[in-house]
Amino acid sequence: MNDLAVRLGVHELIAAYVDCIDEDRLEEWPDFFVEKCHYLITSRQSHEAGYRHGVVYAASRGMLKDRVLALRRANIFEPHRYRHIVGPIRVGKIEGGVAEVRSNFVAVRVMHDGETSLFASGRYLDRIDVSAEPYRFAERLVILDSQKIDTLLVIPL
Amino acid sequence: MNDLAVRLGVHELIAAYVDCIDEDRLEEWPDFFVEKCHYLITSRQSHEAGYRHGVVYAASRGMLKDRVLALRRANIFEPHRYRHIVGPIRVGKIEGGVAEVRSNFVAVRVMHDGETSLFASGRYLDRIDVSAEPYRFAERLVILDSQKIDTLLVIPL
Amino acid sequence: MNDLAVRLGVHELIAAYVDCIDEDRLEEWPDFFVEKCHYLITSRQSHEAGYRHGVVYAASRGMLKDRVLALRRANIFEPHRYRHIVGPIRVGKIEGGVAEVRSNFVAVRVMHDGETSLFASGRYLDRIDVSAEPYRFAERLVILDSQKIDTLLVIPL
Repeated sequence: MNDLAVRLGVHELIAAYVDCIDEDRLEEWPDFFVEKCHYLITSRQSHEAGYRHGVVYAASRGMLKDRVLALRRANIFEPHRYRHIVGPIRVGKIEGGVAEVRSNFVAVRVMHDGETSLFASGRYLDRIDVSAEPYRFAERLVILDSQKIDTLLVIPL
Repeated sequence: MNDLAVRLGVHELIAAYVDCIDEDRLEEWPDFFVEKCHYLITSRQSHEAGYRHGVVYAASRGMLKDRVLALRRANIFEPHRYRHIVGPIRVGKIEGGVAEVRSNFVAVRVMHDGETSLFASGRYLDRIDVSAEPYRFAERLVILDSQKIDTLLVIPL
Repeated sequence: MNDLAVRLGVHELIAAYVDCIDEDRLEEWPDFFVEKCHYLITSRQSHEAGYRHGVVYAASRGMLKDRVLALRRANIFEPHRYRHIVGPIRVGKIEGGVAEVRSNFVAVRVMHDGETSLFASGRYLDRIDVSAEPYRFAERLVILDSQKIDTLLVIPL
């Protein structure tokens, strides 16, 4: 396994992931994860306190799919989009076909009327399955800097 | 054509481009484009509706030069600068000497009195001529997330 | 010295640097610099006017350590954290074991109550010692876009 090729692949995965969300192709979102994955959105405080649950939690690709279905059906929220900016990305240990990766992000939220605001900042702590292509997230922890989680957190981060 | 060398070159072009704008060396800006280029700033809504025109449009390097001249002469706007943050960058298909690239950006605007705000967010959809050095934009579409285009959009994005 | 390896190492250094600050491991921060370093936070206006001093200035690793000690002891400021987003990064001339690098950044500030705001934007102008591992900053100039420096500038940028 070529180290540089893995790095490029990891960057591409992270870029494709935010593109999928920001362009509202949410039905494709679960496919960025392995079947038996771990996805969690939580706050820094909860994460540092060792809590394994957060405001959003999924332990399988099926749960991610359910979430998208619910989000599409409910439709009770005010339409909006995100724009993720990610960087820098750090690729750490690559072992047993899994790469440990962390990156900083901000998500800008754009409401239907065009109102734009800084919605969230934080970091991604990832365990990425790089044993086969396409690369997929085995674990993605979204650690929000602020404990003031917006009630409008419906779209995944 | 080495794929990795092209990727590095594309990153460098995108970085040099925003550096040129953010450091107010606008006279150098047209040189980032091929002679017969296509530059467009538009909103997501207009872009998705298939409109090929936007708030700013240029179909040649000469038109870009005219724009800079007008901007320097007019001087009717309140002095300000941008700071672009770009990332992640995706290099897609490279074919016939042209690379398809897309990236996310935010532009922070800093007014003369130091007032700083989140000005714009969106993505760049690029077709980059990588057949010769220096690389140049054959097409750069600037797709703004918000349809509320600030009337103070004078400096290119 | 392999050019690509240097580039990757520079990216890693910049990522590790902001990770150290954003995760409040400030005691490790001085170790990102060579012993006889130059660290400066200043405004664009001061920098362009050629002033070599700014709101924060250090000419050795020892001075950086003193700064962290003072910051930890004083504790008079309202607790807060930053989240840095950096990109794009440009690696310029690599000569005599030193790489010239520049990058754009924004720092989001998160107060103890979770209040989040765009705190600062600007660029890093770096001279990085790449003659030995780990890479270290010989010089890091933090050029803020705004001359309105927040009085709450205690944590390094």
